[in-house]
Amino acid sequence: MNIEKMVEIGLLFEQYKELLTDKQKEIVSLYYDEDYSLGEISENLNVSRQGVYDTLKRSEKILKEYEKKLHLVENLKKQECFINNVSDKIVDIKKDLECKEYTNLIPKLENIQKLCREMLK
Amino acid sequence: MNIEKMVEIGLLFEQYKELLTDKQKEIVSLYYDEDYSLGEISENLNVSRQGVYDTLKRSEKILKEYEKKLHLVENLKKQECFINNVSDKIVDIKKDLECKEYTNLIPKLENIQKLCREMLK
Repeated sequence: MNIEKMVEIGLLFEQYKELLTDKQKEIVSLYYDEDYSLGEISENLNVSRQGVYDTLKRSEKILKEYEKKLHLVENLKKQECFINNVSDKIVDIKKDLECKEYTNLIPKLENIQKLCREMLK
Repeated sequence: MNIEKMVEIGLLFEQYKELLTDKQKEIVSLYYDEDYSLGEISENLNVSRQGVYDTLKRSEKILKEYEKKLHLVENLKKQECFINNVSDKIVDIKKDLECKEYTNLIPKLENIQKLCREMLK
């Protein structure tokens, strides 16, 4: 399985796992979080290999459908981006302060305020 | 209907409306967003008053069940609180700068960085 898909399903699973059944949750977790193979899951849970495969495909479809409607992974990425952006700007302002460069600080702070307002929209 | 309940259902509806059917969405929107009465909705949509009532109750239950599992309204409130908190601290730092009070600025900025780190957890 390619890594991109693992990360994608991993993120979706983190957001929406409570919307899956216990059985779906268990199989997705074993496959994506614990890196078990289809054969190992089949053996451990006493379900046919085809059954494990079908549950995985069905669960992936459900997770993607929820993302299409609620965009939680997309929003989480935006939020992380916002917070990293604010953090970087704070680091920059601290550097200015350490060098006693005070003139440009107010516009820089206003920039953060603008970001906050946009995030609250 | 009391205002608290209207606000609660309004917030839930905003987060989870895409998980309702078109019919449920329409009735919840008319009742909670547009402030139509049961009778008016019944007349406009050509559904019995009891049907409108049942759809509303069923939709409210669905919305609450999703919130129990995904906590989107709860998380949104936390996020707003974080952003307002950062905004307030920026306002405070700007005041210090205007008064040329530089000594306490670094700890104040570090405080915002701490908030950001907590938010990213």
